[in-house]
Amino acid sequence: MKRILVLLMLAAPLAANAQLSNDDVHKYDHLNQSQYRTEINIPGFDGYQTLKCDFHIHTVFSDGSVWPSVRVQEAWTEGLDAIAITDHIEYRPFKDIVQADLNESYNIARREGDRCGLIVIKGTEITRSKPLGHLNALFITDANVMDVEDPLQAVDIADAQGAYIIWNHPGWPDNKSTFYPVHGELIKAGKIDAYEAYNYMESYPLTFDWYAEYGIAPMANTDIHGLIAMDYDCGDGWMRPMTLVFATGRTEAALREALEAKRTLAFFQGNLVGDKEYLSKLVGASLKTRTVGDRLEVTNVSDITYSMTQGDALYVFPAGKTVLIKTPQGEFTVQNCLWGNGKHLTYMFQ
Amino acid sequence: MKRILVLLMLAAPLAANAQLSNDDVHKYDHLNQSQYRTEINIPGFDGYQTLKCDFHIHTVFSDGSVWPSVRVQEAWTEGLDAIAITDHIEYRPFKDIVQADLNESYNIARREGDRCGLIVIKGTEITRSKPLGHLNALFITDANVMDVEDPLQAVDIADAQGAYIIWNHPGWPDNKSTFYPVHGELIKAGKIDAYEAYNYMESYPLTFDWYAEYGIAPMANTDIHGLIAMDYDCGDGWMRPMTLVFATGRTEAALREALEAKRTLAFFQGNLVGDKEYLSKLVGASLKTRTVGDRLEVTNVSDITYSMTQGDALYVFPAGKTVLIKTPQGEFTVQNCLWGNGKHLTYMFQ
Amino acid sequence: MKRILVLLMLAAPLAANAQLSNDDVHKYDHLNQSQYRTEINIPGFDGYQTLKCDFHIHTVFSDGSVWPSVRVQEAWTEGLDAIAITDHIEYRPFKDIVQADLNESYNIARREGDRCGLIVIKGTEITRSKPLGHLNALFITDANVMDVEDPLQAVDIADAQGAYIIWNHPGWPDNKSTFYPVHGELIKAGKIDAYEAYNYMESYPLTFDWYAEYGIAPMANTDIHGLIAMDYDCGDGWMRPMTLVFATGRTEAALREALEAKRTLAFFQGNLVGDKEYLSKLVGASLKTRTVGDRLEVTNVSDITYSMTQGDALYVFPAGKTVLIKTPQGEFTVQNCLWGNGKHLTYMFQ
Amino acid sequence: MKRILVLLMLAAPLAANAQLSNDDVHKYDHLNQSQYRTEINIPGFDGYQTLKCDFHIHTVFSDGSVWPSVRVQEAWTEGLDAIAITDHIEYRPFKDIVQADLNESYNIARREGDRCGLIVIKGTEITRSKPLGHLNALFITDANVMDVEDPLQAVDIADAQGAYIIWNHPGWPDNKSTFYPVHGELIKAGKIDAYEAYNYMESYPLTFDWYAEYGIAPMANTDIHGLIAMDYDCGDGWMRPMTLVFATGRTEAALREALEAKRTLAFFQGNLVGDKEYLSKLVGASLKTRTVGDRLEVTNVSDITYSMTQGDALYVFPAGKTVLIKTPQGEFTVQNCLWGNGKHLTYMFQ
Repeated sequence: MKRILVLLMLAAPLAANAQLSNDDVHKYDHLNQSQYRTEINIPGFDGYQTLKCDFHIHTVFSDGSVWPSVRVQEAWTEGLDAIAITDHIEYRPFKDIVQADLNESYNIARREGDRCGLIVIKGTEITRSKPLGHLNALFITDANVMDVEDPLQAVDIADAQGAYIIWNHPGWPDNKSTFYPVHGELIKAGKIDAYEAYNYMESYPLTFDWYAEYGIAPMANTDIHGLIAMDYDCGDGWMRPMTLVFATGRTEAALREALEAKRTLAFFQGNLVGDKEYLSKLVGASLKTRTVGDRLEVTNVSDITYSMTQGDALYVFPAGKTVLIKTPQGEFTVQNCLWGNGKHLTYMFQ
Repeated sequence: MKRILVLLMLAAPLAANAQLSNDDVHKYDHLNQSQYRTEINIPGFDGYQTLKCDFHIHTVFSDGSVWPSVRVQEAWTEGLDAIAITDHIEYRPFKDIVQADLNESYNIARREGDRCGLIVIKGTEITRSKPLGHLNALFITDANVMDVEDPLQAVDIADAQGAYIIWNHPGWPDNKSTFYPVHGELIKAGKIDAYEAYNYMESYPLTFDWYAEYGIAPMANTDIHGLIAMDYDCGDGWMRPMTLVFATGRTEAALREALEAKRTLAFFQGNLVGDKEYLSKLVGASLKTRTVGDRLEVTNVSDITYSMTQGDALYVFPAGKTVLIKTPQGEFTVQNCLWGNGKHLTYMFQ
Repeated sequence: MKRILVLLMLAAPLAANAQLSNDDVHKYDHLNQSQYRTEINIPGFDGYQTLKCDFHIHTVFSDGSVWPSVRVQEAWTEGLDAIAITDHIEYRPFKDIVQADLNESYNIARREGDRCGLIVIKGTEITRSKPLGHLNALFITDANVMDVEDPLQAVDIADAQGAYIIWNHPGWPDNKSTFYPVHGELIKAGKIDAYEAYNYMESYPLTFDWYAEYGIAPMANTDIHGLIAMDYDCGDGWMRPMTLVFATGRTEAALREALEAKRTLAFFQGNLVGDKEYLSKLVGASLKTRTVGDRLEVTNVSDITYSMTQGDALYVFPAGKTVLIKTPQGEFTVQNCLWGNGKHLTYMFQ
Repeated sequence: MKRILVLLMLAAPLAANAQLSNDDVHKYDHLNQSQYRTEINIPGFDGYQTLKCDFHIHTVFSDGSVWPSVRVQEAWTEGLDAIAITDHIEYRPFKDIVQADLNESYNIARREGDRCGLIVIKGTEITRSKPLGHLNALFITDANVMDVEDPLQAVDIADAQGAYIIWNHPGWPDNKSTFYPVHGELIKAGKIDAYEAYNYMESYPLTFDWYAEYGIAPMANTDIHGLIAMDYDCGDGWMRPMTLVFATGRTEAALREALEAKRTLAFFQGNLVGDKEYLSKLVGASLKTRTVGDRLEVTNVSDITYSMTQGDALYVFPAGKTVLIKTPQGEFTVQNCLWGNGKHLTYMFQ
């Protein structure tokens, strides 16, 4: 039963001092939403700030449906700090119409990113069949030279360019999150650095154990082809997937350092997946407490809703809200924080 | 002080019967908003239904930023019934990369429209300097042949193809809504059929008189280059501009017949501009009444909020809401319904 | 990533013709939300209209926290058609301060209801221990005379007044939905007519079978003590519980006839519980279809979201939205329509 | 064109670990919104924190429509820090039913405030005709003794109790904001400390000068009789009036010290009224800046939207959003910050 704001919209302009309104033309540019960025409040910890990132993005230069600059505008208005442009090397269905080399989409996006202060990482998607599957190579210098037949040779070229390599959507397209020998070898060789625990509208629960088991960084990326706002944007509590990166600053260099150090959490559908310690610190940074009589006032200063259980009781701490609970004793199970498949963070209020 | 829905999002899938959820992969496709169309409730009258239309739209094939299929998806999800693709003939800044003939963007959009039942009209924008300015030609057969030097020759070619021609944004770019002799001549010759009272984020109040004065149909179109949802989509009461067309059916033929008959209203910022009779009938179809004691219960079944004044009193009838007012006597001035510049509809409750 | 409307709020009044704005005082009465009723769109069928009702409501005259007129205002603004005031006979914790006879809260509410056209039914809650538990008596003439020691005598007095009697929250307070012999006897004697499948924030799944088994009408009522908007109002998709009644008109007499005929469904949390045929007809009245190529366009004209499954596939038809699905074959299981405990409606598109 | 979250609500409970869900009863207590407080983000400055307060509130003990505890619950859920209960002494239309002494409503509210950590101030409204009009006396010890015939005697009794006295709604009920001699005398005598620049749904522009002219503290209070959520709660950007108090802590003592020092701003309809210096410091604390190339990135960390003009240009800084503007030069006029009638704050970005 939502109430709406009753706007009084007269034919006359809203205000004499709106951007240019003479007798001939009334302008309402201040209502153009594209100029407003919605900040996502996720606190940092230990001197790190939390960068909100999406490392898997397509444009019309491969099989996406928008010009690269749109990806930057989407990310900027939606409060992200960094994106990677990762058009497919091998799959470019519009190539008869859209004609350019494999670096062009990044170049366009980068110019837009520089304009608004959003970090845009040069990347590409090496798009092969399983067992290898799809891999995103970030921080590359030239995508064109990876257009080779042998999948592992493409990986080697990326690696030689100093790429940071992500194993994309391990459970797609066969609905099996199989860890093949080739992945073990590439990880051991330092050639796979991260993987997607969430991709687009899917999660891969089996992979939630891979950070603990293989030391590769968990990520949540959109793999967006259409419009973010058309697929995801539907009000509070439901956001595009994002990879949280705990970095010393909001620069490409600081971002890269944090990625190399595997300081990431995958965030989607309200769930956080990754390292137990980062989870615990993020919860601690999000929930501020004050004692009120025999109760604890818990204020969630973040945009992440936390759900905890203790025995039969469920405690929800909604984003941006305060809750009063009986002075807590002992450990809580944080339902939306996972450090492995079915392994929930335990948390104690200080 | 908005309340939010506290979602309980567990790592486990929401339901065992969600679209495929095995141990390896959980899918949340039902949350993909792109598959849901939000209906816009605007009633018809006199046997006509109200089609919600946008006749001015760009894609990457001229200077827009999305693939043509996106324009159909935007319009479909946002509740429109018909759009025209009107890429510039003369201005194609991406043409070194995006290489195709001038009909290609329509062809792509049309295929998408057929898929989802949205009417897509073949159009183009003849893009010249003032005095002529920009004109949209709808229902054309071939845009390529209009790429000629003489502006009026381009108009004649469109006219020979049976085009329905719209005079775009009369107040742009010089902030003057000048009616030049050439427009008078083209109207007299039956070559200009309609004009934009609203374009993108602007209104042209002087032109509000042109339906009454010249018999050309008022329109409100987006002239969208970026994303609709990024520029306009910000909650209730603020929608993309749209041209309301009162047609005998939801088909291209019925739409064209209605356009030729000038049965349109321009709708933007909550304001309706156009023919006095259509305004009155639309208000009447929107506001349902029931007597409650000495008061009148007025239920607005439309998604248009109406604001009326009578003397010092202001009456707001919000979209989808019911209001109780003292049994009304005499005429009301409808603040958001204009049949000319500063000329408001007067309305009496029956 | 919700967008907000950027309001331009200047110190000057929004419009010269707002309700009285002289140099000394600016009034913004049109922004007072209490004067706007949000309609709930739930279609009728078979010549019946669907009345949205709440038959279990408290005020400061028993242990609620608001004056009776507030209950009418809440119901009116939230789109309900009828409520019953059902203050406890036996439990009146504020009685040292709030001093009045047991009919006073109804009298106050009724006057407010007459003012705005909301049906207000005279009721009371006979408040006893289990096995009998709590019973609401509707359409009574005098609550005072039910203040007797013997629970069954109180029921008889209500019955003698022609009361329509509801068995409240069968699973409260012991978390057991036990059907005791006394209930069987009262039903057989025609003294219990209905029961609550949903009460406040609880559901009683075992009772979902009682309409089919005992012929008593299912209801969903709030049993509200605090504020509706404070407990329930949190955006789309989460509304106060309501009992849907399929009546020949929006009058107390038509409502009563429908209640006697057991034409009700319980509606809460998006779920509908009750008679198989009413469920099927309501779904049919809610979902309008049109063929688009090899797909079916399904428009949900109601404010109820329907979720259906067929094999592994999940189909969601959100309130007020349109969805395109492959031309459907065979039966669908409607997940949110239940004619018994775990018994879902099956539905075929025509 | 709002998108909604498609919830999958099955008959089965949302989660096995929700608060008690056995076969008989499913509980959804975590969805009860009354347990969640929405924080209002308004930063402090100079070591002060900003307390959000409402010093004018009625209950059923005078002519309001709710029990006193509800006022605390409303304020708590809506993010306020302090309220005063100010039931009329002289006007108690329900007194035949609601029987108690004049301190009882405060006592009830205070117990609820202690429970949840909300500051509840003992107050009353001395309710006389103009010229004196209505006055709220805060921090009183006994309201009963103010029930005397002579208005100024009542003020003296309040003053003798150490009351902090507010001149309520100067422009009501005659739509004239007249400053009478009696007010000058009371101010000079230190008996009027503050006044309402905003009350309920009204503003009194002439009074905006009174802080500068008479040194009395500006306030914005609701004077609520009905439900806050029913009158005001309609989404972002439209909140109940509130008095911002810049205090050294969130305690009654700190609040009182700040009130005595006149460290307040009146906040309603997005407008702030009061001392030039506090306005400037609040803007500065709200708008964080970062240089991006030749532009300034301005992040509004507050829940207050600021609108500024410079020449013909309008700059809107929405609550919680970031905007990029050309590196600003010179002063801006802050449209929604007023230190007098028609006197806007000027602001320079550092």
